[in-house]
Amino acid sequence: MTNRALTLGEAARLVSGSLHHAGEDDVVTGVNTLAEADATQVSFLANRKYAKDFAASKAGVILLAGETLPEAARPLIRVKDPYLAFALLQRHFHPDVLASGQRHPSAVIDASARLAPDVDVGAQVVIGANVSIAAGSRIGAACVLEDGAQIGENCLLHSRSTIGADCVLGNRVIIQVGAVIGSDGFGYAWSGREHLKIPQVGRVVLEDDVEIGANTCIDRGAIGDTVIRRGVKLDNLIQIGHNVDIGAFSIMASQVGVSGSTTVGQGCQFGGQVGTAGHIKIGDGCKIAAKSGVAGDLEAGGTYAGIPVMPHKVWLKVSAILPRLPGLWGKLSALGFKS
Amino acid sequence: MTNRALTLGEAARLVSGSLHHAGEDDVVTGVNTLAEADATQVSFLANRKYAKDFAASKAGVILLAGETLPEAARPLIRVKDPYLAFALLQRHFHPDVLASGQRHPSAVIDASARLAPDVDVGAQVVIGANVSIAAGSRIGAACVLEDGAQIGENCLLHSRSTIGADCVLGNRVIIQVGAVIGSDGFGYAWSGREHLKIPQVGRVVLEDDVEIGANTCIDRGAIGDTVIRRGVKLDNLIQIGHNVDIGAFSIMASQVGVSGSTTVGQGCQFGGQVGTAGHIKIGDGCKIAAKSGVAGDLEAGGTYAGIPVMPHKVWLKVSAILPRLPGLWGKLSALGFKS
Amino acid sequence: MTNRALTLGEAARLVSGSLHHAGEDDVVTGVNTLAEADATQVSFLANRKYAKDFAASKAGVILLAGETLPEAARPLIRVKDPYLAFALLQRHFHPDVLASGQRHPSAVIDASARLAPDVDVGAQVVIGANVSIAAGSRIGAACVLEDGAQIGENCLLHSRSTIGADCVLGNRVIIQVGAVIGSDGFGYAWSGREHLKIPQVGRVVLEDDVEIGANTCIDRGAIGDTVIRRGVKLDNLIQIGHNVDIGAFSIMASQVGVSGSTTVGQGCQFGGQVGTAGHIKIGDGCKIAAKSGVAGDLEAGGTYAGIPVMPHKVWLKVSAILPRLPGLWGKLSALGFKS
Repeated sequence: MTNRALTLGEAARLVSGSLHHAGEDDVVTGVNTLAEADATQVSFLANRKYAKDFAASKAGVILLAGETLPEAARPLIRVKDPYLAFALLQRHFHPDVLASGQRHPSAVIDASARLAPDVDVGAQVVIGANVSIAAGSRIGAACVLEDGAQIGENCLLHSRSTIGADCVLGNRVIIQVGAVIGSDGFGYAWSGREHLKIPQVGRVVLEDDVEIGANTCIDRGAIGDTVIRRGVKLDNLIQIGHNVDIGAFSIMASQVGVSGSTTVGQGCQFGGQVGTAGHIKIGDGCKIAAKSGVAGDLEAGGTYAGIPVMPHKVWLKVSAILPRLPGLWGKLSALGFKS
Repeated sequence: MTNRALTLGEAARLVSGSLHHAGEDDVVTGVNTLAEADATQVSFLANRKYAKDFAASKAGVILLAGETLPEAARPLIRVKDPYLAFALLQRHFHPDVLASGQRHPSAVIDASARLAPDVDVGAQVVIGANVSIAAGSRIGAACVLEDGAQIGENCLLHSRSTIGADCVLGNRVIIQVGAVIGSDGFGYAWSGREHLKIPQVGRVVLEDDVEIGANTCIDRGAIGDTVIRRGVKLDNLIQIGHNVDIGAFSIMASQVGVSGSTTVGQGCQFGGQVGTAGHIKIGDGCKIAAKSGVAGDLEAGGTYAGIPVMPHKVWLKVSAILPRLPGLWGKLSALGFKS
Repeated sequence: MTNRALTLGEAARLVSGSLHHAGEDDVVTGVNTLAEADATQVSFLANRKYAKDFAASKAGVILLAGETLPEAARPLIRVKDPYLAFALLQRHFHPDVLASGQRHPSAVIDASARLAPDVDVGAQVVIGANVSIAAGSRIGAACVLEDGAQIGENCLLHSRSTIGADCVLGNRVIIQVGAVIGSDGFGYAWSGREHLKIPQVGRVVLEDDVEIGANTCIDRGAIGDTVIRRGVKLDNLIQIGHNVDIGAFSIMASQVGVSGSTTVGQGCQFGGQVGTAGHIKIGDGCKIAAKSGVAGDLEAGGTYAGIPVMPHKVWLKVSAILPRLPGLWGKLSALGFKS
C-alpha cells in the first residue's frame, strides 16, 4: 500500500460521489479497466461499449453514473461523470513529478540563459542565448531551446522537442516528444523563375495549459504570431500553419492540418485527419468529424462532416446513400437516364 | 568481385529457381532495376508496369515468374515469386551490419542500465536508469531511451528515435529515425472548466520483428498497454493511439491513423492515409484502400474503401458514378426532380 | 533606424514599383500587415480578403497592384505583384545569417569528415565518417549527418534534422526541424511466413534550392535514388516514398503522401493531405486540390480534385450535388426507385 492509497470513503469524497455496498474504510491503491482491475483497484464504466465487462469485473469498487444500469449489489461509487471521476482518481494515484533543479552535465546551456533554480535539464539538451525558463519546469533529454525562447512555470518538455527562437510558452504547457514549435511557415512568392522564400519572422505563442502532441509542428508567423490559446490540446502529427489562431479549450485529434492565417474559435473539437483551408474563420464550439475538409468559414456551434463539409446530419444521410448509388444508377440507366 | 558475389548457379539455388540460357558459373555481384542493371547484376520483373523494360535490359540475369512472358533466349532464373527472389538476393548482397560493442564517449548511459557487451551505442545517445539492451542491438546517434525501457536482441534503432519509459521492444525490432514509442495518449476529461489531463501510465509493447517508420508515433496505454504484435510493419508518419492492439503481420502504409482502443486483426493491410475510429474491431485479413475512413467494426477478410468504408467492389462503382452525377442531375432537374 | 532601413524611393526601386502620394526620402524600417503596420513600416494588399483593412491601415506605405482599388490619396507603391514585392522587401529587412565557422565543442565530428572553413556546427551535432559540407553551410543543434552524407554550399539545416548515409544535398538547400532525409523505404516481400525486409540501398538526392519542411520524411531509394529536383518546396509532415522523382519547382502543402516510384512533373502544386498511389506519372504543371486521392496517371496541365481525382470543374459540381442527394433520393424513392 503506497502513501497514495485511498479508503473508499476518501475516494468517494475526492470524486464527489456516493459510496454503495462497500465499507468506508476498505482501501484502493490504483485504477484499472473493468476487465483487468483486481480487488485493490478502482474501475469505471464510462463507455457503453464496455458494459459487458461490468458483471465479471473483479474491481474493488466501480465508478458509475447515477442512471447507468440497475444497481448491482456490489461496491459502487455513483457519480455524475464516471470518466471525470476516473481522471481525478488517476491524477491522485499518479501525481506530477516535481522539478528539483537537476542539470545534466552534458546539457549545453548558454551563459546568458536565465533558469529558475529548481528547473530540471536533461542530458544532451541545448539551451540557447537569452532563453528564460521559469520555476518548476522540466526540460527532457535532447531538447533544443533556440535563442530567446521563453518557457513559463511548471512546463514539461518531453525529450527531443524543439522550441524555436523567440517562441513563448505560458505556464503548465506540455510538449510531447519530437514536437516542433516555431518551424518556418510555408511562404514563397513566385519570382517568374523560382519560388522566393519569404523570411518567417513571427513567433509561436502557446498560452497556459496547452498540450502539444508528439511530432506535431506549429509554424511561426510570417509576420506577427501563431497563437494557441489557453487550454488547447493538440494530438500527435498535427500541422498548424503560420499565423493560425486557435481559440481557448479547442481540442484536435491526430494528423489534423490547419492552413495558414485560419482562425479557429473557442471550444472547437476536430476529429483526426481533418484539414482546413487557409484564411478562413471557424466559429466557436464547432465540431468537425474525422477526415473532413473545411474550405470556407463555418458558423459557430455547428457539427460538420464531409469533403467539403456539410452539416453532420446531412452527411449521415449522404454517406448512407453513397453505397446505394450503383443500384439507383442501374435503375435510372434502364429507364434511359444514362448520362 | 566482393566475397558476396554469386555464380548464377548459386543465385538460382538461393531463390529456389531454375536457370535458363546461362552458364552456372557466370558471376553476379548485385541487384538493379531492369533499366539500370548491367551484365554483372541480377534484375527482376515483378510488376507488369515494367514489362516494357524487359527486352532492352542489360542485366546479367533476370528473375521471372514461370508464367510471365514467352521465354526469351536470354539468361533467366524462373521462380515462383520474382519479388521474393529479388528480396532474398538483395539480402544476400547487403547483409545486416553486426553489433561490435562500440560505445561513443559522448553517449550518456546511466550507471544502472544493463547493456550486453556487444551492444553498439552511437554519439549523443541518452540511456536512462534501469534500461536493458540485449545482445546484438545497435542504438543510433542521438536516440533517447527513457528510464526502464527494455530492448531485445538484434534490434536496430536508427538515429533520433525515442523509446519511452518502461516501453518494451522484442527481438529484431527496427525503429526508423525520429519515431516516438511511448508518447502520452490523448486523454482528457472535461472538468466543466478545462480539459483535465489523465495520466497515461501504460506502456508500448513492440513484439519480435516489428518495424516502425520514421517520425511515426505510438502512444502508450492510458492503463494497460498499446501492443504491436510480431511481424507488424508500420510506415512513416503513422499515428497509433493509446491501447490499440495490432495483430501479427499486419502492415500499414504511411500517414495512417488508428484511434485509441481499436483492435486490428492479424494480416491486415492498410493503404496510406487511412483513418479509423476508436474502440472498434477490425477483423483478421482486412484490406483497406488508401484514404479510407473506418467508423465501425469490420468483418474479417473483407476488402474495403471509401469514407466511410464500404466493400471495395461497391466503392469502385460509386467512384465511377461520382463524376457522372452532374450529368444525371441535369437530366433529372430538366424533368422536375430539382430538390 | 537600422542600416537595413530604406527610403521610399529605394523601396520602390527594389520592387520595380512606382511611388505615389509620398516623399522619396521618407524612411521605412520593416514590413507588417495592414492591420498591424505603423508609419515606419511597409504593408501590402495581396489577398482581397484583407481589402477591408486597407482604409484603416496606419502603414507608412502600402504595396498595391496597379489595378487594385480606386487610388486613395495615401502613400502607395504600385507594383505588378504585391506579394512578390512584399517578399523582396521582407528579404531585404531580414537577410540570411551568414556562416562564420563556429563549431560548438559538444559537436561530434568524425576525423574523416571534410568541412569548409566557414561551416557552422551547432551543439550536440553528430557528423559521421566521410561527410562533406561545402562553404557557407550551417548545421543546427542536434542534427545527425550519417556517414557519407554530402552537403552543398550555403545550406541551412535547422535543429534535429537527419541526413541519412550517402544522401546528397545541393546548394542553398533548407531543412526544417526534425526532417528525415533518407529513412528506409517501405519494402517487404512476403516469404509465406513473414514480411521479409528488402535492404534499401539507394540514396536521396535533393537538388539546389530545395526546402524540406519540419518532420517531413523522404525515403531513400530501394535501388537507385529518390530525387527531389531543383527549387522544389515541401511543407511539414510530408511523406515521400522510395524512388519518387519530383520535378523542378513543384510545391506541396503539408501532410501530402507520395507513394513509391511515382514521378511528379515540374511546376506541380499539391494542396494539403493529398495522397498518390505508387508507380504512377503525374504530368508537368498539375494542380491537385487539398485532400485529393490520385490513383492513376494524370495528364500535364490539369487541375484535379476528389477521391479519386477528377477534373476540378467536375468536382465542384459533384461537391455541390452531394449535400442535395438526400432530397433527390427522397423524391426518387417516393416514385418507386428505391434500390
